[in-house]
Amino acid sequence: MILTVTLNAALDITYRVPRLHPHRTHRVTDVAERPGGKGLNVARVLASLGHRAVATGFAGGGTGEALRALLTQETDVADALVPVGGATRRTVAVVDESTGDTTQLNEPGPTVSPAEWHTFLGTYRELLGDARAVALCGSLPPGVPVDVYARLTRAARTAGVPVLLDTSGEPLRRGLAARPDLAKPNADELAALTGSTEPLRAARDTRRRGAHAVAASLGADGMLLVTADGAWQAAPPRRIAGNPTGAGDSAVAGLLSGLVEDLPWPERLSRAVALSAATVRAPAAGEFDPAVYAELLPGVVVTDRPTAA
Amino acid sequence: MILTVTLNAALDITYRVPRLHPHRTHRVTDVAERPGGKGLNVARVLASLGHRAVATGFAGGGTGEALRALLTQETDVADALVPVGGATRRTVAVVDESTGDTTQLNEPGPTVSPAEWHTFLGTYRELLGDARAVALCGSLPPGVPVDVYARLTRAARTAGVPVLLDTSGEPLRRGLAARPDLAKPNADELAALTGSTEPLRAARDTRRRGAHAVAASLGADGMLLVTADGAWQAAPPRRIAGNPTGAGDSAVAGLLSGLVEDLPWPERLSRAVALSAATVRAPAAGEFDPAVYAELLPGVVVTDRPTAA
Repeated sequence: MILTVTLNAALDITYRVPRLHPHRTHRVTDVAERPGGKGLNVARVLASLGHRAVATGFAGGGTGEALRALLTQETDVADALVPVGGATRRTVAVVDESTGDTTQLNEPGPTVSPAEWHTFLGTYRELLGDARAVALCGSLPPGVPVDVYARLTRAARTAGVPVLLDTSGEPLRRGLAARPDLAKPNADELAALTGSTEPLRAARDTRRRGAHAVAASLGADGMLLVTADGAWQAAPPRRIAGNPTGAGDSAVAGLLSGLVEDLPWPERLSRAVALSAATVRAPAAGEFDPAVYAELLPGVVVTDRPTAA
Repeated sequence: MILTVTLNAALDITYRVPRLHPHRTHRVTDVAERPGGKGLNVARVLASLGHRAVATGFAGGGTGEALRALLTQETDVADALVPVGGATRRTVAVVDESTGDTTQLNEPGPTVSPAEWHTFLGTYRELLGDARAVALCGSLPPGVPVDVYARLTRAARTAGVPVLLDTSGEPLRRGLAARPDLAKPNADELAALTGSTEPLRAARDTRRRGAHAVAASLGADGMLLVTADGAWQAAPPRRIAGNPTGAGDSAVAGLLSGLVEDLPWPERLSRAVALSAATVRAPAAGEFDPAVYAELLPGVVVTDRPTAA
């Protein structure tokens, strides 16, 4: 199975309103709820690709119960979330139907106690015994040590399980030092980490900081992959309009599934790019349009890039 | 005891953000939750005034459980809410800390089935046996008959229990026909009902439509009361700045408590006006500043108004 870790899972709530007027009262015309958090999205896409996906992390309170119920009812993802005393955070996306734009409000998440953190570590180590790869995804809830991804990366490497790291800021910086097999920052995260807005240079720098390989998502420009064996860039055969939320999570699922299937790097990259583009055409993060994926995959153009400056 | 009915109770969520930027992502710095819905606010204020307050209506799902837990933990209100299969709605208030303004998003509420509605009617009739007064408050969830307040008013009158009706639109129009003892519209609701923006004229018209007495809340201008025994207007001794949310619910609690204490009409009105103003100075609906209430109450000026045109 493939394990995904979501320390700050969320109950994602989407409200549709005819038009958003700041400082006024709105009757919401449509309410949708789904399990949220990057690792849960990755797990959903992996399950849709036919992989056995197990999701761990924390869930608690009424919102945590709602999230777990939706995960069981609506996905093929196995629930290995660890109970926590605080309530799982909500994210609220307010869709303005007059423009299609979304205003997003993200709660900070529950404070995790040292005892809960310790319980999670035990569960995580146990799950690694059965894992072929692990993805460490997203932001941290209050109370979790900032070097958490470094610790989880070392535990995975000790267990011989390849690690993909997808986070930002200080947790990314510290996680890289533990030498994950693959880091997947986006262009903004790369620039914040390295100070360089030139993706190839920044990706190379990120490898020097510890990642064995770096896959950088570049929005409509596709994805750049820098490894010890070569560097490649790939883009979808045509521009895809839609909602980019979750596209990065689908790319992670593409890279991870390619890893456990032992595909060559360029094929993993093609899969990540096609899945990412097919997600832009789906209504929600963690979902992709299978017809668009099948149509785009053979047309993804992969080009070699120089591996060293 | 005093019974309050909240058919569309809510879990009220308040988010504070440094500044609201439409179509961007916000990290919420502070999250607060409380039991919401007009009848629950009225019950809280009644309990703070020392009355035994019982709240009925519907609650369901994880949000309903959260609401009931908060009601038990944080208030002296007795919980007689009837379980429903759908989830209690949320309301989300987004406070922009740069301006103090609030953007409000209100979910529609769960659809109530005929069987649930029937169960509620049985509970309501049973509770009436012990009630000295009942307040029927707020909007209706989907599935409830639009003439619900007329039915509930008739049941209360049959049981000899005085009824206060605080709603708007078609439920108000139909409820009035069942001759509640007191209706409490605000100026906008009065105008929508009667077509008149002159409050005294509109309140008299509302009496002709069925209410034995009408208490119209006029914002900073205080409150107008038109009864068979006379008409009065009252305002707080000074302008009170703050958050008007819940001020009308506190006025209802003032009027109801005055009714069961058998106070003369002008004293009921003074209490409603002072409570309403003291609520503007409290952080949340269903709460009032007791020091401000005690200070304002003796200073409320009540003036006679002509009872007929």
